[in-house]
Amino acid sequence: MTPDFPAPSTLYRFFVSYGETDCMGVAYYGEYLHWFERARGQLIRERGMSYAGVEARGLYLPVREAAVRYRRPARYDDALAVRAAVSEWGRASVTFSYEVWGPPEESTLIATGSTQHACTSPQGRPVPTPDWLRELFSAD
Amino acid sequence: MTPDFPAPSTLYRFFVSYGETDCMGVAYYGEYLHWFERARGQLIRERGMSYAGVEARGLYLPVREAAVRYRRPARYDDALAVRAAVSEWGRASVTFSYEVWGPPEESTLIATGSTQHACTSPQGRPVPTPDWLRELFSAD
Amino acid sequence: MTPDFPAPSTLYRFFVSYGETDCMGVAYYGEYLHWFERARGQLIRERGMSYAGVEARGLYLPVREAAVRYRRPARYDDALAVRAAVSEWGRASVTFSYEVWGPPEESTLIATGSTQHACTSPQGRPVPTPDWLRELFSAD
Amino acid sequence: MTPDFPAPSTLYRFFVSYGETDCMGVAYYGEYLHWFERARGQLIRERGMSYAGVEARGLYLPVREAAVRYRRPARYDDALAVRAAVSEWGRASVTFSYEVWGPPEESTLIATGSTQHACTSPQGRPVPTPDWLRELFSAD
Repeated sequence: MTPDFPAPSTLYRFFVSYGETDCMGVAYYGEYLHWFERARGQLIRERGMSYAGVEARGLYLPVREAAVRYRRPARYDDALAVRAAVSEWGRASVTFSYEVWGPPEESTLIATGSTQHACTSPQGRPVPTPDWLRELFSAD
Repeated sequence: MTPDFPAPSTLYRFFVSYGETDCMGVAYYGEYLHWFERARGQLIRERGMSYAGVEARGLYLPVREAAVRYRRPARYDDALAVRAAVSEWGRASVTFSYEVWGPPEESTLIATGSTQHACTSPQGRPVPTPDWLRELFSAD
Repeated sequence: MTPDFPAPSTLYRFFVSYGETDCMGVAYYGEYLHWFERARGQLIRERGMSYAGVEARGLYLPVREAAVRYRRPARYDDALAVRAAVSEWGRASVTFSYEVWGPPEESTLIATGSTQHACTSPQGRPVPTPDWLRELFSAD
Repeated sequence: MTPDFPAPSTLYRFFVSYGETDCMGVAYYGEYLHWFERARGQLIRERGMSYAGVEARGLYLPVREAAVRYRRPARYDDALAVRAAVSEWGRASVTFSYEVWGPPEESTLIATGSTQHACTSPQGRPVPTPDWLRELFSAD
């Protein structure tokens, strides 16, 4: 794992499924955004909340930007681990960073990426990043 | 096309995308349910409504059962055509049938299938199949 | 869990992701086939092989039929468990059965389903169900 | 449409399906990469080849980087149009740019994005961008 990855982070582990591969024999490039989302959800869950809980508090975090850099292909049944953490806070936004690690034993960097999310009301209006969200992701 | 397919029907045409294939080199078996749904949506649209319009009238059609019979594989960039029609009405349900046709020129039967939908209120309560829905799908 | 579910079985656990839900607020009906596949893959893995290993032995198991019965909706972040096992052997085919269980604590039956797979050569020719495959799934 | 979008371009039109939406009621952020790929495939097809044909010539174009900027949400049954074109040539790479337009009548900019692809052999070795590929995308 890269030493300077932000903390606190999570590690979402799974096996690449058949439905995630394409006819080039590797994981399809669009699946990475699903993996990022699952890692993000696990991170929030591990911090003692759930994204459903975030929405229940009236805060939505729609994605404004997503970027992925694909370094090595991932194949069917590969054991992958997605590391995820908050990497930046904006006035009305939050950015998550991701690393995807693969075999052997999570030592190969498969991909990196980031997603920037706006903080909005349920009606989609921008709202200032709430303190409780920052505290949720503050190091223990 | 099979001669006894119910009417009125629609024909939803598209090319198999890379993201729909898997590492066996063929369209993934789960994608067919997406294709059925798109054909179903097009059928409703061609009858002068939209599924969003159906919901706006307070009627939901959640899927109760789905079945697919895979006959021939479909490959990347294959030009496919999904035929869809209502095949059966229940007291509080409606069943759609599907055929997927492929190259050359929509002459190969790729798959057949069906989906049974309950008629429910927005809260998920069963409601009798409304007459306007039957009329929507009645032959011209 | 249902008492008469075939053995040996596996239990594939996961949380419903945002990307698996639809605008009705529930898990999309096509996602269940992905879940079945992941449970199937885990079952094979737990029996000491992998589906990639099955293919490496020259055996392919393309899906011939899939069926799902949707009983209760699953929602975002629901903790689900998919039970999977071989339920029937054919001369040149194998059938898997599935149950999807949800909250509270895997006590609600969300869905049931099955997939029938042909046994084929890498070129797609039907081959008799190999003994080693039957033994792989025989009770301990 | 933006006046300075590179040429030749294509316009891939479709309706947002139920399976592409999520429980926030909008198209899921990962689906945009599928739409980009379909628009890319259509562009190649309209230039008189297919991506399958590109691969048949021994050239693979795996994605190295993908980026999306989400500007407005897209909803179920929205009529969308994805504009796609080659925007940059590298020594051993090619970059495509995308715009997603939505209702009313393809006048709302829903999203923009880009994908950078390496030029590789079937074995994944980098190869110089072939002249025939550049010519394929040259203005008429």
